[in-house]
Amino acid sequence: DNKLKVFTLSSNPDLAYEITEKIGVPLGKSSVQRFSDGEIQINIEESIRGCDIYVIQSTSSPANEHIMELLIMIDALKRASAKTINVVLPYYGYARQDRKARSREPITAKLVANLLETAGATRVITLDLHATQIQGFFDIPVDQLVGVPILADYFEAKQLDDIVVVSPDHGGVVRARKMADRLKAPIAIIDKRRPKPNMSEVMNIVGNIEGKTAIIIDDIIDTAGTMTLAANAMIENGAKAVYACSTHPVLSGPAIDRIQNSQLEELVITNSIPLPDEKRISKIKQLSVAPLIAKAIVHVHEQRSVSRLFD
Amino acid sequence: DNKLKVFTLSSNPDLAYEITEKIGVPLGKSSVQRFSDGEIQINIEESIRGCDIYVIQSTSSPANEHIMELLIMIDALKRASAKTINVVLPYYGYARQDRKARSREPITAKLVANLLETAGATRVITLDLHATQIQGFFDIPVDQLVGVPILADYFEAKQLDDIVVVSPDHGGVVRARKMADRLKAPIAIIDKRRPKPNMSEVMNIVGNIEGKTAIIIDDIIDTAGTMTLAANAMIENGAKAVYACSTHPVLSGPAIDRIQNSQLEELVITNSIPLPDEKRISKIKQLSVAPLIAKAIVHVHEQRSVSRLFD
Ligand SMILES: Nc1ncnc2c1ncn2[C@@H]1O[C@H](COP(=O)(O)O)[C@@H](O)[C@H]1O
Ligand SMILES: Nc1ncnc2c1ncn2[C@@H]1O[C@H](COP(=O)(O)O)[C@@H](O)[C@H]1O
Repeated sequence: DNKLKVFTLSSNPDLAYEITEKIGVPLGKSSVQRFSDGEIQINIEESIRGCDIYVIQSTSSPANEHIMELLIMIDALKRASAKTINVVLPYYGYARQDRKARSREPITAKLVANLLETAGATRVITLDLHATQIQGFFDIPVDQLVGVPILADYFEAKQLDDIVVVSPDHGGVVRARKMADRLKAPIAIIDKRRPKPNMSEVMNIVGNIEGKTAIIIDDIIDTAGTMTLAANAMIENGAKAVYACSTHPVLSGPAIDRIQNSQLEELVITNSIPLPDEKRISKIKQLSVAPLIAKAIVHVHEQRSVSRLFD
Repeated sequence: DNKLKVFTLSSNPDLAYEITEKIGVPLGKSSVQRFSDGEIQINIEESIRGCDIYVIQSTSSPANEHIMELLIMIDALKRASAKTINVVLPYYGYARQDRKARSREPITAKLVANLLETAGATRVITLDLHATQIQGFFDIPVDQLVGVPILADYFEAKQLDDIVVVSPDHGGVVRARKMADRLKAPIAIIDKRRPKPNMSEVMNIVGNIEGKTAIIIDDIIDTAGTMTLAANAMIENGAKAVYACSTHPVLSGPAIDRIQNSQLEELVITNSIPLPDEKRISKIKQLSVAPLIAKAIVHVHEQRSVSRLFD
């Protein structure tokens, strides 16, 4: 009878609360404050000795603050004799820095993995990693949850007809394929290329979208440049309507303006990153990953096989 | 003939430049930028293969940003085949979280040490650690420079008469003693105590300050509460003038107002943390640690004994 306890940090308090409600446990008591100079002050306010701890924190923007908060919390949990420290990262920040694209660049996604292990994390539960390879950056177990079913169920309930699922680039085809299987729809792929250096990119669409309802799927929607250009290309090439979906709503810089002014009917995202009020526009629909994460926590805690749940 | 290269990050670019001028090397070329979502993007823009690298970065406010920047830089340097990665921390952030003052607190000063080693630092050069014990948090060599001579030389040149060096608490007596030896002056200690719970603290002064010029010394001046209360207590107890000095000007929250409105003649600090324009008031005098750090880098690089320099 190991005690399961769930703690939240500052990235996703609402999601964490929803998760504890689903599991049926109270949210762990802790205080996360700032000293006068901005340094993080954490105190765990209940005994956790011998407990299995699940800490909910996305390392979304401000990524560095959220990472340090998480590392300091793990340190406090370790020193307070937690039995296991399971880090739940609905959004894994720095995932796009997963390889040296140029000489003398860091591989920050690997650095973050090392930092989490050094601090004392014993397991990681995450959702739709930008690259599946990031699992291999860890020497501790990593469970990767998949957002496609949540997004697919939403579109299924809408009963759109003549769907085609679109991957905005070659890297996203596997994800689009999964979505298409769920919706029993074909796929199309946007094949971007630059005919000559210094010429602007051409969006060539591989697959038939004529007269169809396109659903573009990506893992991260950040500045929304790719997504809104793709949406407009869909309409220009004869699609009758375009929807988009993405697990992680980073939505930085011009994203909201671009979405507002695009041909998109609707953008469907999850709460792996919470939406601040100024980003809540009618075109954006947010779905909760709390039921999925709650189920994963219970499965992990009961040491049940999770592979079925996670793919 | 190992190549010595000095790189700066964003905490102390002016200090880093001054250090390279003293050493007589150009500042290493690197770019530290932000992606649209605020994630740090670092690129090292010259070959560093086989070089001895010195990275100048105080983990001062915003501490978390500065720590992550430093860790990512170390990762990039390591992957670019640096021979040694020497981290120069004029100010070591989170040093005050160096023990569990309450149950279930983190020991963030130790966490930061672990993070630096995990990222790939091979040596640390720092200045006036809040607690000398932090050296032992590392498994790599740590050189601790001492600011007292710089501060003492300044006061010596002022030719103040009848000096008493004052420690604002019992923890600072060793530092005050060092300063007093340099100035050939006696010391006094402020002995704070709370006569009964819920009664306000009483400042009792141990030592003779009557008619003397008091110089209060501390390692960190943060909100300036301790320092300005001590200054006022000096005057109330018969000192004829009060000066203060402190290596690390954190100066958060009400610090500048308090200093401005205090009985202090002058506060002398170093540039281990740069002073933004809004904190530059006439009562504050900033001295440079660039000559000291430059000398330390050259000594370390030439593998000369540094103990003489560092105490
Ligand atoms: N936070 C970020 N925002 C935008 N681009 C990034 C970010 N982090 C890394 N990148 C870049 O994104 C590229 C990898 O993205 P991808 O090709 O989609 O895997 C790399 O060239 C990185 O330099
Ligand atoms: N950034 C900070 N600002 C103010 N107090 C802090 C900070 N970090 C740690 N502390 C507290 O300062 C105390 C240690 O300071 P000291 O007794 O001077 O070594 C501990 O009780 C900490 O909780």
